[in-house]
Amino acid sequence: MTDYNLLLLPGDGIGTEIMEEVKRVIAWFNDKTDLTFTYEEDLVGGAAYDAHGAAVSDATMEKALSSDAVIFGAVGGPKWDGVPYDVRPEAGLLRLRKDLKLFANLRPAICYPALADASSLKRDVVEGLDILIVRELTGGVYFGEPKEITDIGNGQKRAVDTQVYDTYEIERIAAVAFDLARTRGNKVTSMEKRNVMKSGVLWNEVVTATHKATYKDVELEHMLADAGGMQLVRWPKQFDVIVTDNLFGDMLSDVAAMLTGSLGMLPSAALGAPDPTTGRRKAMYEPVHGSAPDIAGKGIANPIAMIASFAMALRYSFELTRQADLVESAIAAALDKGLRTGDIAEAGAPTVTTVEMGTAILTEM
Amino acid sequence: MTDYNLLLLPGDGIGTEIMEEVKRVIAWFNDKTDLTFTYEEDLVGGAAYDAHGAAVSDATMEKALSSDAVIFGAVGGPKWDGVPYDVRPEAGLLRLRKDLKLFANLRPAICYPALADASSLKRDVVEGLDILIVRELTGGVYFGEPKEITDIGNGQKRAVDTQVYDTYEIERIAAVAFDLARTRGNKVTSMEKRNVMKSGVLWNEVVTATHKATYKDVELEHMLADAGGMQLVRWPKQFDVIVTDNLFGDMLSDVAAMLTGSLGMLPSAALGAPDPTTGRRKAMYEPVHGSAPDIAGKGIANPIAMIASFAMALRYSFELTRQADLVESAIAAALDKGLRTGDIAEAGAPTVTTVEMGTAILTEM
Ligand SMILES: CC(C)[C@H](C(=O)O)[C@@H](O)C(=O)O
Ligand SMILES: CC(C)[C@H](C(=O)O)[C@@H](O)C(=O)O
Repeated sequence: MTDYNLLLLPGDGIGTEIMEEVKRVIAWFNDKTDLTFTYEEDLVGGAAYDAHGAAVSDATMEKALSSDAVIFGAVGGPKWDGVPYDVRPEAGLLRLRKDLKLFANLRPAICYPALADASSLKRDVVEGLDILIVRELTGGVYFGEPKEITDIGNGQKRAVDTQVYDTYEIERIAAVAFDLARTRGNKVTSMEKRNVMKSGVLWNEVVTATHKATYKDVELEHMLADAGGMQLVRWPKQFDVIVTDNLFGDMLSDVAAMLTGSLGMLPSAALGAPDPTTGRRKAMYEPVHGSAPDIAGKGIANPIAMIASFAMALRYSFELTRQADLVESAIAAALDKGLRTGDIAEAGAPTVTTVEMGTAILTEM
Repeated sequence: MTDYNLLLLPGDGIGTEIMEEVKRVIAWFNDKTDLTFTYEEDLVGGAAYDAHGAAVSDATMEKALSSDAVIFGAVGGPKWDGVPYDVRPEAGLLRLRKDLKLFANLRPAICYPALADASSLKRDVVEGLDILIVRELTGGVYFGEPKEITDIGNGQKRAVDTQVYDTYEIERIAAVAFDLARTRGNKVTSMEKRNVMKSGVLWNEVVTATHKATYKDVELEHMLADAGGMQLVRWPKQFDVIVTDNLFGDMLSDVAAMLTGSLGMLPSAALGAPDPTTGRRKAMYEPVHGSAPDIAGKGIANPIAMIASFAMALRYSFELTRQADLVESAIAAALDKGLRTGDIAEAGAPTVTTVEMGTAILTEM
């Protein structure tokens, strides 16, 4: 019997609604198994700004640092469009990633068979699709300095963002990608713009060297990021694991997620380095989709990506593989029975609410 | 009767093959109409590197500066993968864009009706698609300084790229987008990452101000660039004109081009500011596709994007609207007759060569 200690950060918009369903899954494990999940709940994003004037408070950061895993909903919404840059909702998410040192973002893009027709792509292009985007998450243009807007006179402003990558940052994310590829299709595609960016040149060089030193058994391919975006649309099944930087990863993983027709279904994990003594890694799990302000408060959001994010926590933070499989099979079974929230229903077909979908998944478990 | 003075830069790979077909179209105009196009031909990219050790020579730059329009093929290929960064084939293209001050890149993404089934997207998603991506082309991370790799000790290197945008750069590209929207669907979607990048914040601010000052009659919408990538895949017909920065434009226009199923068909224009006295703008026209080293030398490349780029030159550099329409209708007519190069043929269907497609288009003219 072990205790697992979670921090739940529902955030804004539909984040609070879908997190309720995760709590029911947690309660199920606490009731029906000998595992014990304890959790605290706290504010992040716009909700934290409204309460504390910061997108994540120092006290919340303390809790995040001492928890085994953070389960994150979604942040942002039109309500906070005008707040100062440093305390905008996204700043909370970015601080969590940076201060927890979650450099490895795993974004699976899977086409659930039951949903192949929900994609805007032809069925044969996406049916059975299963790719994993490994995105660098604590470097690049997201955090490089200078990052500023200055007044340069004559009514002109100058905005500067800086993309910075050091060798070790590229090495460790490449290693994550190669390790994961070994458990899957054994192929890694590295994407950058080495024809334009110096960071692309270094990225390419370090990924190649890491491959040569330790991962020769894994197939490695390099692709320019713009061509990669094209190839994702043309024939996504050519990929197994894609490794790329923070900004390209942001764009490419969104495109990949939308290809599947399963956006409301896709979870993600953000992982730190294993602690040298305990082997434990800091981690945060969150749906790929956002806070969907347009449907917030209506009880109709799809809770699957959020519940699947909790399943990823079971798998990657706690090595509870059987339990992760159980949750994921229950999701698939609920879908097989024909249950659909509005986002994945065919036009005119009956839909279920957030709570009904949660109940169906619990029933399958 | 007027003289138009062109510089043809076929470049590498299929660039040389498809430029031959443009020359035949030019010869047709010189023969059959009272227009006279004179041209010089010169080297760029890998071909220029092999001859002069630079991706574009100073002499070629002189010619480009004094020509009315540059018609550009494609550059690059595995042969030059190992050449020094400053003289890689792409450096020639980038120098032309920068030194000719071609800040406005027009990239139409059109789905030719005859080719709707060639897309990986469902027919109803792309049929009739006609969007225009207006990409900023002389700023951003492509040209910002510092841009360097330095040795920082302990076997570590640090790569830095810098994204820089000044107010006037955003203003002038926004104006191009709004002006073009007025001739089309009257809607502009501006894409950036203001939630992460300061350049995104300034971009958003300046586009909004430009709209308010001069273009209130045009509908303006803002979208985060990652969400924009998603929306392009989900329902591209929601867009009319998209305006975005150099790097996002690179990615998004490639995704948009691939959606159409017509990649080998899409032209682009890179335009400078109108000269205050003559009103003439410097310009360069090039296919959206690349040098396709895998099929180079076989005589099977699709010349349509290249010929359509020449048609764009007729339209945007010389205001020869009727003649541009003539070329574009001839392309559509050749397609309607069922002629297909390999890239746009259905599996197993008969294909024509580069020259045969060129001949068919000339016959239609
Ligand atoms: C909300 C935003 C800051 C974030 C990002 O850009 O990383 C989001 O788009 C994501 O992909 O998780
Ligand atoms: C060849 C390369 C430098 C170029 C770019 O990145 O701009 C190309 O991808 C393009 O889109 O024209």
